[in-house]
Amino acid sequence: MRDRNVIVERMPGPPTASGRTELVERKGIGHPDSIADGIAEAVSRALSRRYMEECGGEILHHNVDQNEVSGGQSVVWFGGGEVLEPPYILLLGRAVDEAVFRDGHRVRLPVRQVAVRAAREYLKENFHDPALVRDTGFDVSSDTIIDCRTGKGSQDLLRNYQRDAGLSGPHPSRPANDTSFGLGFAPLTPTERLVREIGHYMEGGMRTRDGITAAGKDIKVMAARDGDRITLTVACAMIASRVSSAAEYRVLMEQMVGLLEQEAAGLTEHEVEVVINHADVGGSDNVTDHYVTVTGLSMENGDDGSVGRGNRVNGLITPYRPMSLEAAAGKNPVSHVGKLYNVLANRIACRISTEAGTDISEVRVRLLSQIGSPIERPAMASVELCAADDAAYERWKGRAAELTALELEDIGGLTQQIVYGHIAVF
Amino acid sequence: MRDRNVIVERMPGPPTASGRTELVERKGIGHPDSIADGIAEAVSRALSRRYMEECGGEILHHNVDQNEVSGGQSVVWFGGGEVLEPPYILLLGRAVDEAVFRDGHRVRLPVRQVAVRAAREYLKENFHDPALVRDTGFDVSSDTIIDCRTGKGSQDLLRNYQRDAGLSGPHPSRPANDTSFGLGFAPLTPTERLVREIGHYMEGGMRTRDGITAAGKDIKVMAARDGDRITLTVACAMIASRVSSAAEYRVLMEQMVGLLEQEAAGLTEHEVEVVINHADVGGSDNVTDHYVTVTGLSMENGDDGSVGRGNRVNGLITPYRPMSLEAAAGKNPVSHVGKLYNVLANRIACRISTEAGTDISEVRVRLLSQIGSPIERPAMASVELCAADDAAYERWKGRAAELTALELEDIGGLTQQIVYGHIAVF
Amino acid sequence: MRDRNVIVERMPGPPTASGRTELVERKGIGHPDSIADGIAEAVSRALSRRYMEECGGEILHHNVDQNEVSGGQSVVWFGGGEVLEPPYILLLGRAVDEAVFRDGHRVRLPVRQVAVRAAREYLKENFHDPALVRDTGFDVSSDTIIDCRTGKGSQDLLRNYQRDAGLSGPHPSRPANDTSFGLGFAPLTPTERLVREIGHYMEGGMRTRDGITAAGKDIKVMAARDGDRITLTVACAMIASRVSSAAEYRVLMEQMVGLLEQEAAGLTEHEVEVVINHADVGGSDNVTDHYVTVTGLSMENGDDGSVGRGNRVNGLITPYRPMSLEAAAGKNPVSHVGKLYNVLANRIACRISTEAGTDISEVRVRLLSQIGSPIERPAMASVELCAADDAAYERWKGRAAELTALELEDIGGLTQQIVYGHIAVF
Amino acid sequence: MRDRNVIVERMPGPPTASGRTELVERKGIGHPDSIADGIAEAVSRALSRRYMEECGGEILHHNVDQNEVSGGQSVVWFGGGEVLEPPYILLLGRAVDEAVFRDGHRVRLPVRQVAVRAAREYLKENFHDPALVRDTGFDVSSDTIIDCRTGKGSQDLLRNYQRDAGLSGPHPSRPANDTSFGLGFAPLTPTERLVREIGHYMEGGMRTRDGITAAGKDIKVMAARDGDRITLTVACAMIASRVSSAAEYRVLMEQMVGLLEQEAAGLTEHEVEVVINHADVGGSDNVTDHYVTVTGLSMENGDDGSVGRGNRVNGLITPYRPMSLEAAAGKNPVSHVGKLYNVLANRIACRISTEAGTDISEVRVRLLSQIGSPIERPAMASVELCAADDAAYERWKGRAAELTALELEDIGGLTQQIVYGHIAVF
Repeated sequence: MRDRNVIVERMPGPPTASGRTELVERKGIGHPDSIADGIAEAVSRALSRRYMEECGGEILHHNVDQNEVSGGQSVVWFGGGEVLEPPYILLLGRAVDEAVFRDGHRVRLPVRQVAVRAAREYLKENFHDPALVRDTGFDVSSDTIIDCRTGKGSQDLLRNYQRDAGLSGPHPSRPANDTSFGLGFAPLTPTERLVREIGHYMEGGMRTRDGITAAGKDIKVMAARDGDRITLTVACAMIASRVSSAAEYRVLMEQMVGLLEQEAAGLTEHEVEVVINHADVGGSDNVTDHYVTVTGLSMENGDDGSVGRGNRVNGLITPYRPMSLEAAAGKNPVSHVGKLYNVLANRIACRISTEAGTDISEVRVRLLSQIGSPIERPAMASVELCAADDAAYERWKGRAAELTALELEDIGGLTQQIVYGHIAVF
Repeated sequence: MRDRNVIVERMPGPPTASGRTELVERKGIGHPDSIADGIAEAVSRALSRRYMEECGGEILHHNVDQNEVSGGQSVVWFGGGEVLEPPYILLLGRAVDEAVFRDGHRVRLPVRQVAVRAAREYLKENFHDPALVRDTGFDVSSDTIIDCRTGKGSQDLLRNYQRDAGLSGPHPSRPANDTSFGLGFAPLTPTERLVREIGHYMEGGMRTRDGITAAGKDIKVMAARDGDRITLTVACAMIASRVSSAAEYRVLMEQMVGLLEQEAAGLTEHEVEVVINHADVGGSDNVTDHYVTVTGLSMENGDDGSVGRGNRVNGLITPYRPMSLEAAAGKNPVSHVGKLYNVLANRIACRISTEAGTDISEVRVRLLSQIGSPIERPAMASVELCAADDAAYERWKGRAAELTALELEDIGGLTQQIVYGHIAVF
Repeated sequence: MRDRNVIVERMPGPPTASGRTELVERKGIGHPDSIADGIAEAVSRALSRRYMEECGGEILHHNVDQNEVSGGQSVVWFGGGEVLEPPYILLLGRAVDEAVFRDGHRVRLPVRQVAVRAAREYLKENFHDPALVRDTGFDVSSDTIIDCRTGKGSQDLLRNYQRDAGLSGPHPSRPANDTSFGLGFAPLTPTERLVREIGHYMEGGMRTRDGITAAGKDIKVMAARDGDRITLTVACAMIASRVSSAAEYRVLMEQMVGLLEQEAAGLTEHEVEVVINHADVGGSDNVTDHYVTVTGLSMENGDDGSVGRGNRVNGLITPYRPMSLEAAAGKNPVSHVGKLYNVLANRIACRISTEAGTDISEVRVRLLSQIGSPIERPAMASVELCAADDAAYERWKGRAAELTALELEDIGGLTQQIVYGHIAVF
Repeated sequence: MRDRNVIVERMPGPPTASGRTELVERKGIGHPDSIADGIAEAVSRALSRRYMEECGGEILHHNVDQNEVSGGQSVVWFGGGEVLEPPYILLLGRAVDEAVFRDGHRVRLPVRQVAVRAAREYLKENFHDPALVRDTGFDVSSDTIIDCRTGKGSQDLLRNYQRDAGLSGPHPSRPANDTSFGLGFAPLTPTERLVREIGHYMEGGMRTRDGITAAGKDIKVMAARDGDRITLTVACAMIASRVSSAAEYRVLMEQMVGLLEQEAAGLTEHEVEVVINHADVGGSDNVTDHYVTVTGLSMENGDDGSVGRGNRVNGLITPYRPMSLEAAAGKNPVSHVGKLYNVLANRIACRISTEAGTDISEVRVRLLSQIGSPIERPAMASVELCAADDAAYERWKGRAAELTALELEDIGGLTQQIVYGHIAVF
């Protein structure tokens, strides 16, 4: 366990939830930054599967965490709208496109074809709505321009990636590709849980169960808590063809406030005030005074997105918590600590928190890699426990270190789970 | 002051510097993410100046925080090298390209021309090295491909931006363009100061004064503190044409370790161990086993960069501190809270910290906007003071609120300072 | 008729068919240059229809004759293959994207969306083959990258286009957009007819009726006639998944030679020798020694195409005849003489030739415009008649002038026929 | 000589100059199509020189005849103007970027870097005007966006290119890369000479010697001859910052008409009428009613250009003559018959014409290749002589065949002359 470099200590200060104020944000799946993340991760997963098929189960080096979503142009009116200029998505990053086997034979890999195909399929799975295509003539999955300038990786990193770290174990060990770190914490505060659940509800039940079919998927939820009062500010792109007038829009906003307040009441004991589409101009009949779109996605009209600027791997943006700036989406799931350490730090924190229950009110984990060293041997694995009292701390200190070491040992197991989409990274 | 929504409270827990562990990172000016940031900000400044000239001092809406730096390809050998494929930089984002005046006349604005020109000049000012151009045949400022697909902004935001907030004051008030937040803290911990100063030294004095001219500008400094010991892991792209052999490279590494340890000793009382280019393969004579480049910039060979994924506005990445995920660089300096609130939160924290001295060992400021409300009236301005004792807290509580309100009132003054480059944002 | 500036004269020299030698070429629909032409014309037609819908039957200015088809990369083996990198098609040119009506209201037109959609549909209609998609995993219509940088036209030309020419008639008159010319001739020589018919046969009956389903659509036919002997050199991209071995390939080549010789025998009395895929290496079993592709289109692997570099408006390339260099495809069908005059000159020649029968063995027509003058009033309309004798010339001289004037008067009628695809332009 | 397949015959009909009508066109160096050609050729020459340096004098396969010039946007007023959006140039085509030597070692070649650099230098050499940069703030050589998506060539062609044709001689023999043809003729008619010389005069003496510094380099000259009368229609982009008013513009037009008529008088005995900028609106003071630009290049404002759509290799477009449609510029000067055969056919025609003097009033040469056969052995070399009488024909028939065979034998000598820019190709 020593070579895992685990350091357990008491977390300074009280748990986050007990602070007077808190800010939490979540960008929904249709936010341009999330679309960039989603495509990056879809491309990485597709490449990984292809590499495994062609190279005896091996995932070759790639790092496709550099997409750009550049907004199009649209015009809307109540009852309809049109996309004038399709959004433009540029796939960038690196991926090995030739494998040289020990016997010297070479296999070319269709990196750009796989990337473009995966991106298009991601859009289709998540945003294709046949009724909307029929109503508006725009199909976000096939009409969006997807260009690709993905290149080959740096020779140096490739070599490093391929160098054998000389360790044995259930999963072959990989040297870290960078000096970087990952962060995680558990459990979520009530405000964080609220934001996450409200986000899920708006993407799912609100539309399907509660009939708000005019709500698009570009949703941003932000909670500001001051003591016991939470202001939930929600931005939700409405679909023009499903809102016939400003009056209907206003009715919808009221309905949605009601539904969200009801949903919130079931999720938290805090007092929650809901504000939707705050930039709207009240009382106006002008369509441009409301948040109305053709597709339910603001990327149709000038909103851009980049990988790594949206949610962290736990699905939230939490400025009252330490956060990593690494873009996890699109990084290779074998050696990239910017991805693996963030996922793992969250798992460790959750596992400790779940096991310790009320003894430990908050766990923070930080993992630091050193480029070239095996990823299961971090330069530092720092665990902070916010313990109820000294006894609780002493009870859990050793176990926390143990769990951390166990999870590090099993880090190779994350790869498959990521490749098959069982672990979300944004 | 009430409408500033300032909340002052005691910071939970001890100051960051007193924790057992700490991680701090800084990406130097030549890191691909920093290049993306630098270009985004240079473009925003150039556009702002142009808007002011053409539109009676007014800065029109723009948001050019979406550049991408896509790495090229190069080949190196000790004593030289060549860029095979130039890096590719795509300028994206939005900027208003037509101003309609009250008397109805329209002025077209050369948005893309200004953007491309500003990007090229930024590269020239920061990375042009005539001797290197002569030695390698590659001029990073003129040979890098700079493409531009910057579009026009969303109608809706434009309108919001133009809507008058109806306030008076020395600076005209602007409604916030988004629901977002900014964060700041002060003072820096000794580890943070160390990272910042070591970064400055490596970009400046180490090359000019201490003669390490073979060091490039793509530098990453990371400090991991465990108690009183700091491990300073530095990656520095060396310039191949100025390193004649692996042996000379190793001598340079030793020299640099010596210089950095000496520099560190003057900056902190912690024990500092310096590790440079840790991915190098010791003892190898193969050039690819060393971090050697043609230009001193890793973007020449497969390293990509994006806006907003590097340093925060204080020039550091600090996972032991709360951070904003907003990309400040490239955002308009008039109404974009993702830029202004981060800058302002840092200023407020610094001002309180400086004034309060040892009474307050740490200040944290968080500003939350609400889209459409005047930017000088945040939805919440939270100030946390880590006071030496109750008395100290009581002494500074009111003054902290007052300083916060004063700075908020004067937020319009930031605009000019940003436009003329007096405030760094990454 | 005087203002049509028609000049009729005797054609110098004997008819083309009676020369000792002749060269004729035809690029099939799947040749990269033809794909560029086809997409350009499909985009122009789609834009025209959209303009007519939105603007009261008016076709606004556009000129989208600047596409580029940039080849992808593929790998093949007998029995299969894979596209490694999809082809990239960039749509360029100009099109008006905003219509200002007399009452001052403006309509935005979805120029780029229409263009990208039309390009994709063109690929689908002409090259989509579900069985091939199933066999190879590559769908040329949806997997090809289609990017669009179509801009707005020059102000000056726009104005010119909009200026009213002040003429009346069944079709409103338009000023010519350029000083340019168009050429046409009739009838085709036997060699020309042979090339055209062989091209049609290979794209159609050879595949569907005669069972050569392994033949792709990228076909080039070139005939060199020396006296009575024609060498027909044919290049035809074969589909790898439908050719299981080099032996089968060779059998196919023999079959195709047989079929083409048989087809040729029914088309001409000249002696015809057929050579297919002359760059193949006879006797080799190596797949790369044969003209074999995944999709039947050479653009999958490095072959590029541009608008205007393939067939002339009569579907042929005829270096023994005068030719226009204008790219007809993609030009607007209302005022662009580079398109209309080539089409019209061919119609005039055909009409005279048909009417005059054996009296006139060859007709050549050249139309010269002058920018800004009405298109039905050319600066010069030169008609050359290759008459059997003086009497024949005198008989047809006046009628030829008359027919020319009539066709010029009715030039506006071409527009609709082009928009609805009734006139081929390549 | 037999294997040169030379066929000499009498040209059917009278010489071109004796026809009643004639059309001749020339696109000046600043026309967008010429810019595309010029860049393509500059890139090919730079690549050729680089290949020769790295590969023992060998020029590797490339074919960079697919650039696109996409126009920018500008605004002008009398006395000045501004480029709002820079033109965009995309370099495409193929070039081998890795050479494998017999001893197995590989050399990477900086294809894209060489291409972008050559394109930029071409713009600089031909269009850089420091005074104009100072006046307008736009530098066409450094501000134009130059992007590059040049790829690697098709495997198959590469192999063909590399296959040794097994011939000896002063220049190593190359197999033709395509089934294609080249055309040439001599001498020029008086109208053709006039167009060429007027073009040269306007690009040179008119500006430097005769003081029309306001004339830009985007010049198109078209001559329509009807009997003895030539109408010379000239389009010349004027430079806005050097024309202070519509009145001055009109004075300039008059001056230019005078200069051109004077120049024409010295060049031809035909009666010549000169028309300049015919699309201008006479009497208007509105700048947009005149052909005025910022840079003297229409590509600044919406005019696009492609390789191969401008002048033929003799610098003219001659619809009364047979022409090749091949884009010569950018093709490799070693094996590409689309380039070499057009250049060579012109040389052969000129050489015969010069030697034969008045005996032969016109020579036409057509060369047909067959893919895979040595380029010095065409499938057909057809020479047509327009002889003064039977005796003249008999005198020159044999010599014409001989000269053709000699030039074919020496075709390898063209390569160097093309690489060092001694032979113009557009």
